[in-house]
Amino acid sequence: MERQSASHLIESDIIVVGGGYAGLAAALRLHDNAADFVLVEAADRVGGRVLTEVRADGVTVDHGGQWVGPTQTRLVALAARFGCPTFPTWEKGNHIEVRHDGTRVPYTGAAPEQGPGIAAYVRITGLLDALARTVDTARPRRTARFAEWDAQTAGDFFRSETNEPEALRRLDLAVQGLWCAEADEISLFHVLFYVAAAGGFEQLMETRGCAQDSRFTGGAAAPAHAVAALLGDRVRLGERVRSIAYGSEGAHARVRVRVRVRTETSEFLARRAIVALPPHAVRALDFTPPLPPGRAAWLAHAPMGRVAKVHAVYDTPFWREAGLSGVATLYDDGPVGVVFDNSPDAGGPYGILVGFVYADRLDRFAALEETARRAAVLDSLASVVGPRARRPRDYTEKIWTHDPFARGGYEAYLTPGGWSAAGEDGWRAPTGPVHWAGTETASEWNGYIDGAVSSGYRAADEVLAALRAADAGGTGR
Amino acid sequence: MERQSASHLIESDIIVVGGGYAGLAAALRLHDNAADFVLVEAADRVGGRVLTEVRADGVTVDHGGQWVGPTQTRLVALAARFGCPTFPTWEKGNHIEVRHDGTRVPYTGAAPEQGPGIAAYVRITGLLDALARTVDTARPRRTARFAEWDAQTAGDFFRSETNEPEALRRLDLAVQGLWCAEADEISLFHVLFYVAAAGGFEQLMETRGCAQDSRFTGGAAAPAHAVAALLGDRVRLGERVRSIAYGSEGAHARVRVRVRVRTETSEFLARRAIVALPPHAVRALDFTPPLPPGRAAWLAHAPMGRVAKVHAVYDTPFWREAGLSGVATLYDDGPVGVVFDNSPDAGGPYGILVGFVYADRLDRFAALEETARRAAVLDSLASVVGPRARRPRDYTEKIWTHDPFARGGYEAYLTPGGWSAAGEDGWRAPTGPVHWAGTETASEWNGYIDGAVSSGYRAADEVLAALRAADAGGTGR
Repeated sequence: MERQSASHLIESDIIVVGGGYAGLAAALRLHDNAADFVLVEAADRVGGRVLTEVRADGVTVDHGGQWVGPTQTRLVALAARFGCPTFPTWEKGNHIEVRHDGTRVPYTGAAPEQGPGIAAYVRITGLLDALARTVDTARPRRTARFAEWDAQTAGDFFRSETNEPEALRRLDLAVQGLWCAEADEISLFHVLFYVAAAGGFEQLMETRGCAQDSRFTGGAAAPAHAVAALLGDRVRLGERVRSIAYGSEGAHARVRVRVRVRTETSEFLARRAIVALPPHAVRALDFTPPLPPGRAAWLAHAPMGRVAKVHAVYDTPFWREAGLSGVATLYDDGPVGVVFDNSPDAGGPYGILVGFVYADRLDRFAALEETARRAAVLDSLASVVGPRARRPRDYTEKIWTHDPFARGGYEAYLTPGGWSAAGEDGWRAPTGPVHWAGTETASEWNGYIDGAVSSGYRAADEVLAALRAADAGGTGR
Repeated sequence: MERQSASHLIESDIIVVGGGYAGLAAALRLHDNAADFVLVEAADRVGGRVLTEVRADGVTVDHGGQWVGPTQTRLVALAARFGCPTFPTWEKGNHIEVRHDGTRVPYTGAAPEQGPGIAAYVRITGLLDALARTVDTARPRRTARFAEWDAQTAGDFFRSETNEPEALRRLDLAVQGLWCAEADEISLFHVLFYVAAAGGFEQLMETRGCAQDSRFTGGAAAPAHAVAALLGDRVRLGERVRSIAYGSEGAHARVRVRVRVRTETSEFLARRAIVALPPHAVRALDFTPPLPPGRAAWLAHAPMGRVAKVHAVYDTPFWREAGLSGVATLYDDGPVGVVFDNSPDAGGPYGILVGFVYADRLDRFAALEETARRAAVLDSLASVVGPRARRPRDYTEKIWTHDPFARGGYEAYLTPGGWSAAGEDGWRAPTGPVHWAGTETASEWNGYIDGAVSSGYRAADEVLAALRAADAGGTGR
C-alpha cells in the first residue's frame, strides 16, 4: 500500500522525527556533537504542544505549555543558553475557590485551611506522595507494588480511601488539572510514576519553587525558536512522516542497518532515527517491521489528555486592586476548572486571565458554538474576579483535542494495565535503530517541557553511543 | 499539511471506507437499495479481520474470525444468500485442561465439574450474566449502574469477588479468550455490555448453539468475497484513506454538505460517508473539522486486543482416535491459551489444531524468533494431544498485532472511563455527514462478524434515510 514516491532522497546519519521540545533537544544535542542529522516536523512551526502567539495588540499568549520551575534544570539551562528570560508567576493576593454549591471562598496557599473534604484530600494526596516515593521512574516495572497499582484507576484508589463527595471532587479536579483526564480513566501507577518523576505532589501543584514558578517573557516557545534558528535548514517543516522501515537486527542482519523514513513528499535515509512524537502519532505511522507488541500496547493504552486553554485579555489586571491573585479553582458547573493570572511581566501592559477546561467538561464545552463557549468562560471568570471579567478586550481559545497534530494535551497518560502490557521494553527501549523521545518517555518531569528536553537528550545520547560503537568497528551499524 | 493531489476525482452519493464485513454489509445494503456508492479498502483484499488462506496443500485456514452461531442471524442470512455452507465445529470427545501446575485434566462441557477455583468461577461468571442483563446495549449510558461499572476494570471486580488464585486464573483466561486483553486493562462496563450484546456469557463461551457453533466450509471470508464479487468495480482495493473533510452543519451550512475523502492516490467526493474501520484506524485519519472530543475520546480509549492465531496441520485428526476433542484450555507457561480442532469438514482430508496466543502471553511470544515460536506452540499442542503434535505437515501463524491495517484483534475494547468520556454521542452517532460502522459499534454481537454486518446495515440505513429526507426537499443535504 505504500506510495512509491518519485521525489528526492535525503541522506544523513540521523533523522529526528518531530519538532517539539523533545525533537529539538535531540537535534541540539546532535548539533553540539557535530553529528550529521536532519529534523522533520509535520506542522509549519516548531514547538509542538508549546505554542506562543502574539495577538493583534502585541500581547503574547501561550496556548500550550507555559511554565518553568527551578528543579526543571534542563529547561532552565536551555533557556539560559539562548538568553530567554523568565519572570515569576503572579500569585499575590487571595485565591478563590468556587465550590460545587456556588459558594465563593477566598484562600491563600495550596487550598483553604478548612472546608468540606479538605482533610481527606490532604491525607490522600499525602498518601500519593508516600507511595510515589517507592516508584522507580527509570525502570517502572521494578517498583515493588507495580502490578497492584497498574491494575487500578486513580478513582478506584480514591474511593478506597474516602467516600466523602467533597474530597472526591477535590481529588478529581487535581487529576483533571494534572492529566486532563478523569480519575476513572487513569492508571494509579501512572499517577504515582508521574508524581515521582516530578519530585512530589507539591512540586506538581504549587507555584513558588514548583512547576508553576515562572513564565517566559517571550513566551514558552522562545527557546524552541532559538534552537530552530541555530539548526537552520536542518529543520524541515511541513514534512509529515507516514512510514518508517528498517533492516532486521536478527542473525541475518545486513552489514549496515538503514532506516527509511517517508513523508508525504520526501524520502529520508539514515543510520538511526529518533522519533519524538506523542504516542498516538507514533501509533499512526506504518512501521516495517511492525512494532513489537509491548511497544504497540504501551502506545495503544496512552490516550492524550483532553484540554482547552482560554485567555481573556483586559486593559489592566483589575483583580489585583481588589486583593485577588487571579488564581482560582472551580467546582461548579461552568467549563473552567482552574484560573491563573497570565498577565505580562510587571512592565507589560494589559491583564490576562487564563482558564483551563478539562476532560469531561471539555467534551460539553467543545460541543457549544463559539459564542456560547466564550460566554460560558467569561461567566466562570466573572465568578472569580467579578463582572468586569465579562468585557475582555480580546478573547482567544485553543481546544487542543482539535489540534491536527497534538490531538489533545498536555500529554498522554496510561490507562490501567497499559504499563503492564508494555512489558520490559515497551516504554522507551530502542526498537532496532529507532530511538524514542517525547515527554511521555521521561523519568524526570514526565509530561512537562523539561521532560521533553531530557528525553531528547537521552535519545540523542543513545544514538551517538550506538554510532560511535559502530564506527569503532563494532557491529558495523 | 494536506497533500494537494493532482489525481482524479471520483464522485458518488455515498463513499464507504473499509472493506471488512461492516463496510461490505453497508455497501450491500446500498446496492440493494440501488444507491450510488463506492467502497474503498486500504488492503489488496476484502474481509478485514477475517482472512481465509488456502495453503499450498489445499487446506483452508482461517487466520481471523471464523465461527458463526445460530443467533448471529445477520451473518447466517448473509451466508445463506450467497450460498456459503457451514458445518458444525468438532467437539466430540474429551476436552483437556492443562493446569497451572502442569496437571492434565480431561473434561466435557463448559469446564471441569470440580477443581480449584471452579466454584468461584461459576459464581462470578453467573454474576456477570446477571449484571449484564441490566445493560442497555443500544443506549449504553442509560444502564443504571453505568458510571460505577465504567470506573472499574474487570480485574477490580473479580478481586472484589474472590481472592482464590485459581479462580482468578480462570477469569483471566476467559477475558483473554474473549477480548485478547488482560482483566486489568478492560472496563467492567465494556465486559458487561459485550456479554449483553451476545445474549449472555454462555453464548460467548460455548460451542453448540453458541458463538463457536459452526464454521464456513469455504472459510469465513467466503461471504465477504461473494459480496465483493457482486459489487464489482464499486469496490476499490489499495485505496488507503488519509483524510476526511466535510462541510459544517452549523447555522451557516452550505446548501449541500459534501464529504471529501482523500486516499494516497485519489480523491472522492460524496454526500455522505460511512467509515467502517477499527477505532485506531479512524483515529489515524485527519478530519476537518476535527472529531468532537467525545468521539475522539471513545476512539482513544479503545486499544485493539492482542492476539496471534496459530495453525498446525496433520495428516489426520489423530487425537480423535484417542477420544480427544482437540479442545483445550491451558493455564501453564506456554504461549497457547486455548486450542480447538480446526480440521476441515468431515469429508475433508487432514487434521488441524488451532491455538490462540493472547495479550501478555503474546508479547512474550512475538519477541521470540520464528523457530522458537513454532517450537513453543507445538509444545503447547503436545501437552494437549500428545507428542505427535510436534510433527505437523504444515504450520502457519498470524500475529494480528503485526497486521498493518488491523494492528490487533479480535477487536477493540474500551479501557476504564472510555465509555464515560465518550459522552452521549461519542460511540456511533453520526458526525455531520459521516456515519460510523464497524463491529465495535454494534448493539448485538459486538466484536463478532455478525456485529460488523449489523453495524454496516445500520449505517447504510442511516445514510439512506438522510438522503431520502434531503431529496424530499428537506435539508437539501
